Amino acid sequence: MAATMEKVCVLGSGNWGSTAGKIVASNAARLDDVASEVNMWVFEEQVDGRKLTEIINEDHENPKYLPGVKLPENLVAVPDAAAAVSGATLLIFCLPHQFLPRLCASIKDAAAPGARAITLIKGFDVDDDGIVLLSEYITAQLGMPCAVLMGANIANEVAREEFSETTIGYHHEANGKLWCRLFQTKYFRVAIVPDPVAVELCGAIKNVVALGAGFCDGLKLGNNTKAAVIRIGLLEMRQFTQTFFNGAGELTTYFESCGLADLITTCYGGRNRKCAEAFVASGKSWDELEAELLGGQKLQGTLTTIEVIKAIDKAGARGNFPLFTAINAICFEGAAPSTLFDNLVHDDALVSRM
Amino acid sequence: MAATMEKVCVLGSGNWGSTAGKIVASNAARLDDVASEVNMWVFEEQVDGRKLTEIINEDHENPKYLPGVKLPENLVAVPDAAAAVSGATLLIFCLPHQFLPRLCASIKDAAAPGARAITLIKGFDVDDDGIVLLSEYITAQLGMPCAVLMGANIANEVAREEFSETTIGYHHEANGKLWCRLFQTKYFRVAIVPDPVAVELCGAIKNVVALGAGFCDGLKLGNNTKAAVIRIGLLEMRQFTQTFFNGAGELTTYFESCGLADLITTCYGGRNRKCAEAFVASGKSWDELEAELLGGQKLQGTLTTIEVIKAIDKAGARGNFPLFTAINAICFEGAAPSTLFDNLVHDDALVSRM
Repeated sequence: MAATMEKVCVLGSGNWGSTAGKIVASNAARLDDVASEVNMWVFEEQVDGRKLTEIINEDHENPKYLPGVKLPENLVAVPDAAAAVSGATLLIFCLPHQFLPRLCASIKDAAAPGARAITLIKGFDVDDDGIVLLSEYITAQLGMPCAVLMGANIANEVAREEFSETTIGYHHEANGKLWCRLFQTKYFRVAIVPDPVAVELCGAIKNVVALGAGFCDGLKLGNNTKAAVIRIGLLEMRQFTQTFFNGAGELTTYFESCGLADLITTCYGGRNRKCAEAFVASGKSWDELEAELLGGQKLQGTLTTIEVIKAIDKAGARGNFPLFTAINAICFEGAAPSTLFDNLVHDDALVSRM
Repeated sequence: MAATMEKVCVLGSGNWGSTAGKIVASNAARLDDVASEVNMWVFEEQVDGRKLTEIINEDHENPKYLPGVKLPENLVAVPDAAAAVSGATLLIFCLPHQFLPRLCASIKDAAAPGARAITLIKGFDVDDDGIVLLSEYITAQLGMPCAVLMGANIANEVAREEFSETTIGYHHEANGKLWCRLFQTKYFRVAIVPDPVAVELCGAIKNVVALGAGFCDGLKLGNNTKAAVIRIGLLEMRQFTQTFFNGAGELTTYFESCGLADLITTCYGGRNRKCAEAFVASGKSWDELEAELLGGQKLQGTLTTIEVIKAIDKAGARGNFPLFTAINAICFEGAAPSTLFDNLVHDDALVSRM
């Protein structure tokens, strides 16, 4: 039934984008209602004297961003974004946050009528009117609904087909079920929830909590303290969602992979935790640490902390976010790391938020 | 108002018991309605040629179980249990599970009329009628209500006054509030919840999940997989509680320190995780590992797994506990550790439990 055939395009070919491409292409090959060939937009670059798109299409591997992992032969690298999207009914966004505006402009009207999107990008913007979710931005720019996929998903581990889980947040149940069929595998278990805003914000805000966890490590505090910071951080993540998005932030959503599982992973591994630990241990500035530990890349957690506090201040709500407020004070206001716990409210107040 | 003065007795003087004694004695000294002197029942033994009770009462330290920590001078070690309890209105149980029956027999009727208990002991029994909670046992033996205190509370970290949280589950709100006042300090934050069965079972069953986390480490799997096992484990902990105790197991309880925080701590540190990792890596038997790693002490997690499966089988409910069932199969039925994930049900089923 060609009339109802779905056509998939993955936008982005980094570490996570290539992994997502591997998953959906392997499923597309076996799903009757999805065209086998999956396009993946690849920002063209030279690798060992060859074009990256050529390497992917001939060797079926992405040696620069996902080395050592065999990609399905039906995953086709395309250097032109509009050409990659042409005729697609299912768009998967998985590229660096800052490239999103230019990409959206370049693919306007290229997709098929009735196309739907899903974003795997972690982050959000804040403009004069407040928080702008990337899913909202994609919908506004391209006029299509946009679901979100977030979870405890370190790309290399998923690409090695180690068991993990993920969470898809949907606005329309039918779309949620379709995305689930496209991403679900035996080693990658998908749960779908009708709470897309909470799922998307989990992916962004977890990095703020990870800074708090890293401060605990830098202070050489034990597992009790770190677990408390993770727990309170999860509650403030929900509090933030409920404060700025009416009706979003179901308690059950935070029990999904996008909630506590991704937060645990981020607070025990990950660059944000690592840099925050070094921030305490070394006393160096964030710029110095980004240069030394991240090769000059920007740290996501500190950028997100700035946006989170901007939003909280706009609502005059610092009192409701004692942990986020303390993390911001330690990051940017010269507060001593040991002050992390000074204003943590009594649990009864946190419990009452549930 | 001597008529309403509370009198506290701590039953047990191990690592956690001595720490609990430190906390409640420091609070008793400043609370108007609690007698300053707090008795601590100490199982008498010789340490460096002196009686342990003498050392505690003269040096105000427990060099055997909590070395290097100053104990309040109003914490009085008493070698005779009935004498320690005599006249007490608040009994704090914190001793090894297996000593509880003998202790209860020895202090029958020694407490003051209207006395209340709280248990910090992790574990439960299973008899022909099913699960017997230790709080239920204490109430049955001594005829007094028994609350529970559980959380991410590694004793040495709490004794060092590093920030942590804990959870008190109560049957009677007035008792919950009283226990909160007795245990709450600036570094030890107490939340009280009216879900005592769930709180008590969290403390026992977390060790089963910790075996699963240790298997992941032994299999050299990454943070994604371990976070998924922790997440699914938390859901099965709740499922277990709801299966065997009607009306217990509020979702919010698992967001407390006794839930996800204690589980995280146990799955990243702790002997159960460590032995499970070695079980996979070395292929040795549990007996060998207990001898090598625990000096012959019994591993709590494997004992609890036996009790948990016994209860699940009595209900013919293995299908609802794919993770617990797989952990038991790997521990005791010769299943390969890599089968841990084979029967993990689709998240939708787990979500539907919430």
